[in-house]
This record gives sequence, C-alpha cells and structure tokens, in this order.
Amino acid sequence: MKDVETQRNKQLDRNSLLKSYKKVRSFSHKLAKPLSKEDYVVQSMPDVSPTKWHLAHTSWFFEAFVLSKTISKYRSLHPQYNFLFNSYYVQVGDRHSRPKRGLISRPTVDEVYEYREYVDKNMLKLFKTLNDKKFSKIAEVIEIGIHHEQQHQELIVTDIKHVLSENPLFPTYKNSADIKKGKGVSGHKWVEFEGGIHTIGNEGDNFGYDNEFPLHKTYVEPFSLASRLVTNGEYMDFINDGAYSKAELWLSDGWNTVTLNNWEAPLYWIRNGNRWDLFTLGGLKKIDLNQPVCHLSFYEAEAFARWAGGRLPGEYEWEIATKGQKIEGNFVDNGNFHPVAATNNNGTIQQMYGDVWEWTRSPYSPYPGYNPPPGALGEYNGKFMCNQIILRGGSCATSKSHIRNSYRNFFPPDSRWQFMGLRLAKDAK
Amino acid sequence: MKDVETQRNKQLDRNSLLKSYKKVRSFSHKLAKPLSKEDYVVQSMPDVSPTKWHLAHTSWFFEAFVLSKTISKYRSLHPQYNFLFNSYYVQVGDRHSRPKRGLISRPTVDEVYEYREYVDKNMLKLFKTLNDKKFSKIAEVIEIGIHHEQQHQELIVTDIKHVLSENPLFPTYKNSADIKKGKGVSGHKWVEFEGGIHTIGNEGDNFGYDNEFPLHKTYVEPFSLASRLVTNGEYMDFINDGAYSKAELWLSDGWNTVTLNNWEAPLYWIRNGNRWDLFTLGGLKKIDLNQPVCHLSFYEAEAFARWAGGRLPGEYEWEIATKGQKIEGNFVDNGNFHPVAATNNNGTIQQMYGDVWEWTRSPYSPYPGYNPPPGALGEYNGKFMCNQIILRGGSCATSKSHIRNSYRNFFPPDSRWQFMGLRLAKDAK
Amino acid sequence: MKDVETQRNKQLDRNSLLKSYKKVRSFSHKLAKPLSKEDYVVQSMPDVSPTKWHLAHTSWFFEAFVLSKTISKYRSLHPQYNFLFNSYYVQVGDRHSRPKRGLISRPTVDEVYEYREYVDKNMLKLFKTLNDKKFSKIAEVIEIGIHHEQQHQELIVTDIKHVLSENPLFPTYKNSADIKKGKGVSGHKWVEFEGGIHTIGNEGDNFGYDNEFPLHKTYVEPFSLASRLVTNGEYMDFINDGAYSKAELWLSDGWNTVTLNNWEAPLYWIRNGNRWDLFTLGGLKKIDLNQPVCHLSFYEAEAFARWAGGRLPGEYEWEIATKGQKIEGNFVDNGNFHPVAATNNNGTIQQMYGDVWEWTRSPYSPYPGYNPPPGALGEYNGKFMCNQIILRGGSCATSKSHIRNSYRNFFPPDSRWQFMGLRLAKDAK
Amino acid sequence: MKDVETQRNKQLDRNSLLKSYKKVRSFSHKLAKPLSKEDYVVQSMPDVSPTKWHLAHTSWFFEAFVLSKTISKYRSLHPQYNFLFNSYYVQVGDRHSRPKRGLISRPTVDEVYEYREYVDKNMLKLFKTLNDKKFSKIAEVIEIGIHHEQQHQELIVTDIKHVLSENPLFPTYKNSADIKKGKGVSGHKWVEFEGGIHTIGNEGDNFGYDNEFPLHKTYVEPFSLASRLVTNGEYMDFINDGAYSKAELWLSDGWNTVTLNNWEAPLYWIRNGNRWDLFTLGGLKKIDLNQPVCHLSFYEAEAFARWAGGRLPGEYEWEIATKGQKIEGNFVDNGNFHPVAATNNNGTIQQMYGDVWEWTRSPYSPYPGYNPPPGALGEYNGKFMCNQIILRGGSCATSKSHIRNSYRNFFPPDSRWQFMGLRLAKDAK
Repeated sequence: MKDVETQRNKQLDRNSLLKSYKKVRSFSHKLAKPLSKEDYVVQSMPDVSPTKWHLAHTSWFFEAFVLSKTISKYRSLHPQYNFLFNSYYVQVGDRHSRPKRGLISRPTVDEVYEYREYVDKNMLKLFKTLNDKKFSKIAEVIEIGIHHEQQHQELIVTDIKHVLSENPLFPTYKNSADIKKGKGVSGHKWVEFEGGIHTIGNEGDNFGYDNEFPLHKTYVEPFSLASRLVTNGEYMDFINDGAYSKAELWLSDGWNTVTLNNWEAPLYWIRNGNRWDLFTLGGLKKIDLNQPVCHLSFYEAEAFARWAGGRLPGEYEWEIATKGQKIEGNFVDNGNFHPVAATNNNGTIQQMYGDVWEWTRSPYSPYPGYNPPPGALGEYNGKFMCNQIILRGGSCATSKSHIRNSYRNFFPPDSRWQFMGLRLAKDAK
Repeated sequence: MKDVETQRNKQLDRNSLLKSYKKVRSFSHKLAKPLSKEDYVVQSMPDVSPTKWHLAHTSWFFEAFVLSKTISKYRSLHPQYNFLFNSYYVQVGDRHSRPKRGLISRPTVDEVYEYREYVDKNMLKLFKTLNDKKFSKIAEVIEIGIHHEQQHQELIVTDIKHVLSENPLFPTYKNSADIKKGKGVSGHKWVEFEGGIHTIGNEGDNFGYDNEFPLHKTYVEPFSLASRLVTNGEYMDFINDGAYSKAELWLSDGWNTVTLNNWEAPLYWIRNGNRWDLFTLGGLKKIDLNQPVCHLSFYEAEAFARWAGGRLPGEYEWEIATKGQKIEGNFVDNGNFHPVAATNNNGTIQQMYGDVWEWTRSPYSPYPGYNPPPGALGEYNGKFMCNQIILRGGSCATSKSHIRNSYRNFFPPDSRWQFMGLRLAKDAK
Repeated sequence: MKDVETQRNKQLDRNSLLKSYKKVRSFSHKLAKPLSKEDYVVQSMPDVSPTKWHLAHTSWFFEAFVLSKTISKYRSLHPQYNFLFNSYYVQVGDRHSRPKRGLISRPTVDEVYEYREYVDKNMLKLFKTLNDKKFSKIAEVIEIGIHHEQQHQELIVTDIKHVLSENPLFPTYKNSADIKKGKGVSGHKWVEFEGGIHTIGNEGDNFGYDNEFPLHKTYVEPFSLASRLVTNGEYMDFINDGAYSKAELWLSDGWNTVTLNNWEAPLYWIRNGNRWDLFTLGGLKKIDLNQPVCHLSFYEAEAFARWAGGRLPGEYEWEIATKGQKIEGNFVDNGNFHPVAATNNNGTIQQMYGDVWEWTRSPYSPYPGYNPPPGALGEYNGKFMCNQIILRGGSCATSKSHIRNSYRNFFPPDSRWQFMGLRLAKDAK
Repeated sequence: MKDVETQRNKQLDRNSLLKSYKKVRSFSHKLAKPLSKEDYVVQSMPDVSPTKWHLAHTSWFFEAFVLSKTISKYRSLHPQYNFLFNSYYVQVGDRHSRPKRGLISRPTVDEVYEYREYVDKNMLKLFKTLNDKKFSKIAEVIEIGIHHEQQHQELIVTDIKHVLSENPLFPTYKNSADIKKGKGVSGHKWVEFEGGIHTIGNEGDNFGYDNEFPLHKTYVEPFSLASRLVTNGEYMDFINDGAYSKAELWLSDGWNTVTLNNWEAPLYWIRNGNRWDLFTLGGLKKIDLNQPVCHLSFYEAEAFARWAGGRLPGEYEWEIATKGQKIEGNFVDNGNFHPVAATNNNGTIQQMYGDVWEWTRSPYSPYPGYNPPPGALGEYNGKFMCNQIILRGGSCATSKSHIRNSYRNFFPPDSRWQFMGLRLAKDAK
C-alpha cells in the first residue's frame, strides 16, 4: 500500500475514520431494510449480485485486508467465507464463480448479519486497542474499505432495482421521498470553457483511488457543455425519429448490440399501448418528460449525441468544468432513488453531480505515469483498464461523501443497469 | 376430461378423495419444513424449480382446472398468479419463462402459504357444498391434481438437493432416518420371465395417467432381470476400468454428452483426493459401495449395461416382471431421502419399487391407440412423447401411494438430478 | 465381421460384386459432374459435408476396412488421409472435426480424384489376384463399402442442394429430367391392413445392415395407410390454418424448435410476396401443389398428421404394408432429383418407395436380440440408437438398388435437409 | 466527399493515379497466384474472408463509389453483386451476412476475375474520357479505392494464412524469399524522446484516411522506446515463466480471454513435443528466437510489457518517435511474408516500419475535432471507434506505399491473426 500512502498528503484522523466507519456500515443496513428475506437472495443477471452477497462481501473486505493482516491468528466466522465472498482478487485465493452468487441460499440473511456484527466487533476492537504506529499502517486500507462499501451501497440500490424489474408483479422497493414532477424544463444553454494546458487528477488532499493519480498536465481545445442533462422528453424525440432502426446513427458495435438485444428504448422503459411507462424503485410510473433520461448504454448516449448534433464530453472536459465547484446534487442521501428534473433555466451549469452518472467519450485508460499499488489491492482498478468507458459525477444512488471532482467511474459500453445518463458537449468555434 | 373418465372403471368416493387431498396437501408442507426462507427461492438450473414455485404451482393447478371452472366468477388471490404459476399448459394462457423462476422473490414464502390456504379453503368448500352430480364432474380432475402434487413433492426433494449441492458449504436438508450401511451385498442372480403375448397398461381399476392407456397386447421374447439394482461398488469398477474415456462403450450422443460436460462419475459424486464422496440430503458422505448407484443418466446406465455384458430392460419387461407384485420398498414415506442397500441375497427379485427409478431402454412413445384427453389437461403427457426415455418403479423420493405397476415416468437421456439408477437385463437363452 | 457374415444366407459372387463396385464408384463421379471446383469445397452447416469430402471418405472406407487389412504394408496415398477422411469410427483412430470439413481446401478436387483412382486401382487388383478363401473373407465388407458409398451418393445430392440454397444467386445443379406438373391429384384413400403377429426384419437372402436383424415377431393392431404421400397443397392448407403459431398442435420439443428457428414452412420454401417458391436442384420454382411435400422435420410431419386427424405410421406398419411389393418408384436413377406427383387416383397404395423418405412415429431402437458386429464396423449403426426417428422407403436421391423393404433410415427429429415427407396412417376401426 | 477533399493540400495528378491504379490492381492478382481454386473459397473464421471475396469486394468498391455515381445507367456485371460484395456500408444497401462468405461457391474464381476485368475496363474508360472537372470530382475517391485495395491485399495474405493453418496438412503458400536466420540479436537499448506539446496527425501533403485528421496539439511526458521489437526468444521466457497461468499479470478481460480459449502461446505457435514450431506462409518451421514475436493479441502484448517491467507505447509516442523518419522496412514488397530479425545492435531505433504492426496502449478514439465525411464513405473509420486498440507501423504484409507516420490501424484487443507484435516503452525518469 506504499504507493497509495504517498499519494495522500495529510494524516488520517482515527476518530473521524471511526465515525465514518460506523456511519457507512449502518447505512448498508438502512438500504436493505425495505427488503424481504427472499429479495436478498436473487441474482437477476451476472452483473447483479444478491443483496446478501454485497453485505457479506463488504465485510469480507475488512477481514481480508485489515483483520487477517493485523490480528495474529485471526479466524473468520466461517472458513469458507473467504471463498464465497471474495469478488475478484486473485491474489487473495480462489473464489466462488460470479454468475452463481444467486444459487447460494446459505449463509442465510440472519447469518450474514451475524457475520457483519462479528466483523464490526473485531474492527471496533482494533480502533480502540491498536497503538498509533500500528493503526497508521492500516488507516489507509480502512479508508479504502469504507469507500469500497459505499460503492457496494450504490450497487445494492441498482441491483435490487434490476431484480425487482424482472418480476411481472413489479414490486416496489420504497416510495420516493421527493420526486415531484419536473415542470417545464426548457432547452439547455451552452456553457463555454477555455482550452490550453490543464492539470488533471486527484490533488491528494482528500481520499482518491489509485486510478485518479498521478496529477498530470493535458492539452485541451476550447469546448462547451450543455447547462443540464438530457431529458426523457428529448430522448423520446430520438426514439420517435426512428433512431433505433437507423444503423447510420450508431457505432458499429452499438448497432450490433441494439439489433442483437432488440433494444428500442433505454432499460426500464416499458411499452404500455401507445405510451411508455418507467419502472422505478417506487414501482411502475408514467414517464415524466422533464426528468433526466436514465439507464442507457454508452452506445445509446453516443448515438443520441450524434443525432442531436453534439457529442459526449471527454472526461478531462468534465473535470475541468467542475473544478472548484461545490458538490451538490440529488444523491442517495436524499432518499429519492431516482433522478429529478433540472430546476433552473437561467443557463448556469447544473446537475453535474448526482442524478445520473454522465457517460463521457473517454475510454478507461491509465493516466500517464500511473502505477497500481502492489499486492492484491493493486487489482482494485488497474486491471479493468480495457473495453470500458469513463462516467463522471455520481448519481441518485451515490453517497454525497463518496463523490469528487476527480472520481473516475467506468463501465462497459453496453451497461445500462446503473443510473446512467448524459449531457451534451461540443467543440467551441 | 371425458376420455380420462371412461378409462376409469369405478366411481370415486368423495370422502376418501377429501382425505387424500388433505393428506397430500399437508405432506408438501412437511417436506418444506426443514428449509430456511432463502432456500425456497433458488433455481439452480432450468430443470429445477424453487420450492416456493412448486408450492404455488400445485395450488394453481386446482385453481386453473377445478375452482375457476366450477365456482362462477372465481377470483384468484392475485391476478398475476395464473401467469406466474402455470408451468406449460399453453391452452391456459401465457406463462412466466421457466428458466426465470429463480428471479422472482415475490410473492414471498409467507404469501405463498397464504395462497395455499386460500386455495384449500375454496377446495374444502367445494367438497362440502357441491351436489353429487356436480362433484362427480370434477372428482377425476381433483384426483389428477392430487397425483400432480405428489409428482411435485418428488421434485421438491430432488430440486432442493440440487440447489444445496451448488453451495460450497454443502448444507444438510435433513439427516436420514435410516440409512444403515449395507453389509455385504453379494452378486445379483438372474430371474427368468416367459415370452409370448402379454397385456400391458393400466387395467383401470385404479387411477392412471392417460399415457398408461389403452390396455393392449404385445409380443415379448423371453428375458431375465437381475435380482437387484446395480450398486455403487459395481459402478465404481466401471469407472476404474476407464469407462468415461472409452468412446466405444457409449452411444454416440452419450459420448458427446460425456465429453462436453467432462463427466467422470454420476452426479453428486465428488472426488476427495483418492476417494469419492457423495453429496446426499444428509450432507457430504463417504460412498457406501453396497447402496444402489444413483443420479446417473440414461447414457451412463446404457454404457454400464453394455460394459457389464447385459442390457437395460424394456419397459414392457419391467411391467411384466412386477405384475401382481405387492408395492413395497424404500419410498419417501420412510424419510430416508436416499436409496438403501439390498437386504437379501437369496436370488428373489427385490428393489423393483422405490430406491431409484430404473432406466429402461424404451423411448417414451404412445401406446397403440393412445389418445390424449381433450383440453389443456391433454398437454399433461402426450406432448412430451419424443426424445425421452421411460423409467419405472419410483424412488426414495416417491410417495408409496403414487406409484403403480403401469406407471410410466420419463426424462431426457441426459437427465441425472432425479434418483435414477438401473437394473441389468438380458435375453433368455 | 462374423455376425454380419452369419446373417447372410447366400454366398457373394465375385463377378457381380466387381460389377457393382465399378458401377457404384463411377456413379459418384456422374453425380459430381455438374459441379464447379468451388462447389466441392463448401460445408453449409455441420450436418452437410463438402462433395470433395464424400468422394474421399467413401474411398477411405475401402482403405480402412479392406486394403489396409488385406495388403501387407499397404500405404495410403497420403499419411494424413486416414485422419482427414474418417467420419466417426473411433476404433480406427483420431479424426478431423466434423464441422471443420469446409475449412480444408487441400487436397484439391484433382487430388481427391487421384486418391479415388489410387484406391480403385488397388481394389481392382484385389478382385483379380486374391484367392477364393481370402476373397471370401472380405467380400462382405466390400459389399458394405458399396452400400456405404450409395448412402453418401444420396448425401452428395442433399448436401449440395443445401450448399447451393445458401447462395443468394440460387444456382442450379441440373435441370430435372422429368418433373412434369402433377395434374389433379385427388384426395387419398385409406388402405387397410390386418393386425396380429407379423414377422419383421431382413430375411437374409439379400444384403442388409446389422440394424435390420434379427428377424423377429411382433404383435400389431389393425391399421390403415393413406394411398399416397401428403402433397404440397395439403401442407399449404396446414400453413394457412396458422399451424406454425398454434402450440397445441405440436410436440413440446417440436414447438420449441419451431419458435427457436422461426420456422413457418418446410425447408426450401421461400416466401415470394403472396406466394411460396421452392428451391430445387433445378433452381427456384413456383410451388406445385400436387407434388409430395418435402424437406420437413419429424416435428412438422407429426403435427401435420395430428392436424389432419391421423397419425404417422409405425415402422412395422410400413414394413408390413410393403412386404412382397415390387420396388418401384422415383429414384435417383431417374435423374429427377425431386419428388413427383402421384399418378393414379384409383385408391391402390403408391409412392411407398422413392420420392421422399417417409417419417414414421418409431424412435430408432435395436430390434429384440440385436447385437452390433464386433470391431469398428460395429459403430456403423448401433451407437446412433437414441434420439433419432425411423424413416422408410427411400427418396428421389436414393439408388433403386440400395433400398429394400427392411431398410431402416434414421435422422434426428429436427432434420430437414434430406428428401423427407410423410404419409398418413390411422388405427383401423 | 467534400471534407476529405479539403483535408488534402495538393491536387491529384491523373497520370500518376492511373499508374497507381494499375499497379495496385495487378498486385492483387500476383498475391493470389500461388493459390488453387479451392483455396479461394474458404472462410476459416468470421474475421477471415475468402480470397475470392476480397478480389470481388475491392472491385465492388469502385463500382459503388465511382462507376455507379459517374456513368449514367451504369450496370454491374450481375445485379446481386452489390448485395454479395458490400462489406458493411449500410448506406449502400443490404448486404450478405459476413460469417457466411465461405458458403458462396458462386461466382466461381473465373467469374470473379471476369468481374475484375469488367470493372477495370470501365475504370480505364473513365480515366481516359472524363474531362478534368468531372475527373477532379472522383479523383479522391479513386485514391481511397486504391488504398482500400491495399488494405485488402494485406488481408488476403493474413486470411489465407489462417485458412491454411486450419488444415492438418499444413500447406505452403509460398516459400519466403529471404528469411535468413537472425543471428545473435542482443538486448534492446532505450531511446529517449522529449516531452511537451507536440503536433499529431496527418499534415495533408499526402493521402490520409479521415481518422488521421485534424492535425492537433497534445501534451506528452518524456518517454523512452526500445530500440527494436520484442523477439520470440524474449517471449518464450515469458511463457516459460508461467505467464499464461498467472492471473495477476493480465488485464481482467485478457485473463478471461486466455482461460476461455486455453491460450498458452501466440497464434500459430504449435507445440511439438518439447519444442515450439511456428506455422508460417512457408509452412511449418522451427521457431527462430531472434525473429520478432508475432500474432499475439493486445492482451498478450500488454501482459508481456508488464512482466518485462515496461509498458506499451502510446500512439502519440510512436508517432513522435517516427516523425521525419524515412519509411523503410520489411514490407510485402520484399516477398518475405514473415517478420525478420533485427539487424544492428548499435542502439539506434529500428523496425519501426514493417515486420509487425506494433500494439500501442491507445484505445481507438476520434482526434479532437474529428468529423467523418458525409455519406457512405463516412462509415469507413468513424463507426469503429469503440472497443478497438491502435496499432502502428505496418507489417511484412503491408505495401510500402500504403504506410505512413500518421497511419492508424486498429483491431479488437483479442485479435491475433494479423502480423501483430510489440515494442517496449517506459516513462523517462
């Protein structure tokens, strides 16, 4: 973890770390609360994991990278849990096949909560008893574990949405706290940004994953971003223009994906006679044209941008545009579990954070000079740097304390089950 | 249902039917009792259904074929249950895709039990209130529904076995009541039977599925059957002789199946260093060489028979050999949930009923003159008469009251997850 | 080959065998003559083999089973040909993967003809020089090799038809000699046959494959067969009645096959606006309603029979009906390469031989007492006795001298590329 | 084609274009000359096209984009050729399914050469008869057509290599002119390059595809490139170190690809007892350790670089390093059809052009400000800008006149059948 440590400029405070740990751990329970035990078990596609698995895996992370390395002769609650709840860290040993996570009825939900309790008990003991020198050695990893759990909290939300969507009964996870109908979102304005040499990456004052480092320079042409996200209404125009049957609008792989899967709208859009309904975590709803369009693939976002006469932003452009901006938006903390309509029409840039992850046009690549940390945690990010596309800004399923200006999320271009949307960009004249 | 009715010679008695109904319905609950709620949800392969689904589907059967046809304006507990719990009766409407049964977390287990209660309440009302004329019209279908539920009880057992086997923790369903180690099963004897014209099929004094009719004549050459089932010990000789890598022992499709799936032993045989373990409903055990071999495909049974210098019995041969024999054996009623070793060595024929379904060499075909009943219940058997093989005799997961001499079970030749085994046959000199 | 020998009652005559050998070998060349070199290479699906391969494989058969076993230190023309041109005889050594036969551009067509010449030269030497004792040892196998080549001649015809059909240019193989339009084929009559005990199988006076033995008794109920084959016109009524979208008409596996492959008509029926065209070896034609329907699967034949109120014949029924009948019909010898319409309407049974192979309802199973011959030739038939259905009577691509009353052809139930059709049957009152 | 025109700074000369046209067209015939007619037909995997198809498709290109747009009422030689020989231009109409190109035995090889002659005749007429104004309108497209045919010439070579490699006879295409054994290639040296702002892209004095435009600035950190390509010997060390079974060396998708396909060496490496042989266009050879390693995927190149302590170059780095360098190397013009060993050990940079395409670490993305040309030719490059990786420098199958400093080749990261290799890079200290 040496490289990660050096990337961090300031010392971690034990008390605030403990507070974060407790807060984040209990938030997982809060998210799972509306579920029946049966809901915890299902894996509706290989990308999705059962809630039960997320709750166990995030605990396993602390066992594998903190407890077992700090407490001598540490014993897990069950000898097989290291096998069952390792996700992909090949250096930590064999692991259970990902597409089979939904076949594992045991440990039961109750047993998983016992496991969480067991891990928490041991972690709290560490927080209390370790001397400063020893604690400083693991503080970084605990912090990663906390952010790791926040990532899985987002997956708990998006995965259970997919699970429930497969059920013809269209069950409700939770009624949204506050999705008032958007009223009259007007056309976006273009906001211009200057070109030239910019500094990109995590400046190291706060937490960052290895893929945000090192800080480096890049040369960018002047560009413009749309003042808000693309809406359902705008996207419906694209559909109504026959876009899903016009090959010339699409990337070649995109068109193959569309035809192979018979896509004719984003995920969770459900044709209901002449209108479209939307499956949400609050159940099946009539589509609100003012809300940001959501659950579309990179291919769809890219084709829409072409059709609309624009393009997707580069990830550097997005980062430049939000530099120094306050982190505000519709996060999971709000309890909406759905993106909300833009609220002002004055042309200032909005919705950069929260609501939906914004597809960029940047393939996920290492920054110049990037080096993954040694050991199993080096597998966290680096090995996925191929065939994936960068998304920026967080969504309505992201924790506010998890997101930042330099945060690089990434998914394969055909992924749709995250809260994914887009904002238009264009070259400046 | 007219054809079915005429196939039955005696009148059904309302009281004994009610008694059967209650007994069978409550036995389903008894079978599910050892499970956690999470166990009810999982579908480990397309052939397997979640326990929850079996419990609901057997109730739906009474709704679809009895209640909705007898009670005017009958309302199901939920309008979507007809869609979710129809298995394959195309004439009853659309149905939920079979391989997706494990994605349906709702209705929950509790809701499924409510559904069963709702159906039972309505059924009991019918039993009580219908006049004789009306009742006689539905008595046959109720009887089919009872046998149908018994079939699904067998599937509850075999399906949960498969589900639990996919779990690296190897959970236990229930400790067997009575699987004492077999001691010293000696070599089988040959029991001879006469050839000539025999009468085959259900004689109509008791219940029978349509595929057991009509009673008809057939010409059979003299033959011999082994006095007992093939054992694990005998099958292990076959394995140790390299049978799984000798193409010449196998049917062409069998060899393709073996190589495609890398089979090297029956299902649930788990290599443990130099020995073989067996996954059972009582957990992982060391193999008992005296017990009947089990969970093998038709291909394996057929290849074993060839290797052993014999052949599989024809289904007529099996039926002729058991004609008039008392129905006794190791059934699900015993609570073993596993086949047990042969007990006598005196050369008389044994284990014809119970323990394991015996693969015959007979493809599943209609009897001469067969006609499926009209309507949706005509789909019960007839439409599966292709690419399947007949098995006879019931297993340790079959109810004793469900099996009979003319009973024709059938599965595709590569199926292994039922309690399937074999007995050798040969042509008489 | 001992068992095969004993199944034959009379001695083979060397001269007539030589005559057959020459005639059959040269007929292969005649069939290939209309082809361009490029046509010889293509494999349009795994079931199809390139013409080049058939020509080489039939020669390899004589090398593997005659020359290499009779001539000491016999050397094939090329050491790799045994690998390339073995079809499935596992006991003769490894072999080239079947679906990759179309990837092998070498040996070239000219080289394959050289190979044939090389084999013929060696075979003719054997015919001339072997003493009677030695010759009698191989005469049976040579006879099998001749019949084997006739089987592949039929495949040359059906395979090149499939190859050409994949080409949007719809090339012509050869203009048919004599497919006059059928005129006014009237409705079929029913021809009755008696039940009781019948003798089935090859009587051993002439050649027969092992699967036609042993001669044995069977008990059959009285039955009726239609006086002629089902026509395109009758089948079009079935299509127009919506049969391809009515699940209740089909076997379960049949319905799955229909929906998976989007079948809406037999193979080679091509929708042309409001009418149907037919791809034939003479090019694309308008459908002739009087000709026998052809290129349909067992599933389609079986569903048609149900729809028409009849059923398919059992293979025993077909054999009983043709016992003693003269072998006449529209064979490959006629040069039509297509079935022709029935010619008389007087109710006598016709078209039993030639035109199209008739699907029976009999799964391909061993006859009682069947034993495959020892050695590699034992793989000729026995190992395919699973998941296949019997067809009887030969087709317009079969040589007249190849077919007989006891001949059992077999294909999987979803096969369509052979000239396959059907005749209706029903139980006698 | 307006955009393409404006990207070009100087006028095209009709005579030199005609000379190029003739030279390139006849070179296709020269490449095909060693083949038998049967070789022209085969498609050994979906990525590969039959030689016959390449010869026809490159002619179709001139028909579709020049002849049919310039000659009024132009008629192709056959109305279906537009369907058969369109590769992927959706705006030019429907097209034949790519994976089925090997099923089309007609048009025959002779007919394809007639087609080429027909197109050439019409093209030459245009060259001769068009007035300058009209000619200037099509000159650019003719030039693209010439470069397009050169691309397919490279594919003719790589595709026939793959076709022949599938044949267990390992046929020879042609004996290499000049692959002397490399002798004693010593360790590479590092060559340093300066960082800062560089100009990237095609400067417009000569031909370039749209994806090389616009010329633009980029900021690059200082870097070093290895003085030569990685050799078979170095790669064998990687294999012998167990790299193909060490997950931690690989990108996640790379590891999945390796395990799914059981890769254990580059394509065309064939284990021969204890040593490795190499399938080449000159037949099967013992591996020469001094030759550049070839036919490996991006995944293998990337993993090798990590294992070797370096990384792959970025495409900008490669372009900066070759700026102004003379284009020299082992091209298809040499007739080797195989990469040759590095010749000097003095530490100057070598093998930048020819031998093998060099994998970079750059995903294929549009340059800032990129716009595809309007119309069907806009599909040439832009729509493939996803899931592909840039390669630079040309190979032993590339024409010398086809390659340039700004040339961007691209393939999916699991492709191996092109002559693909690598050169190491590293960050400067």
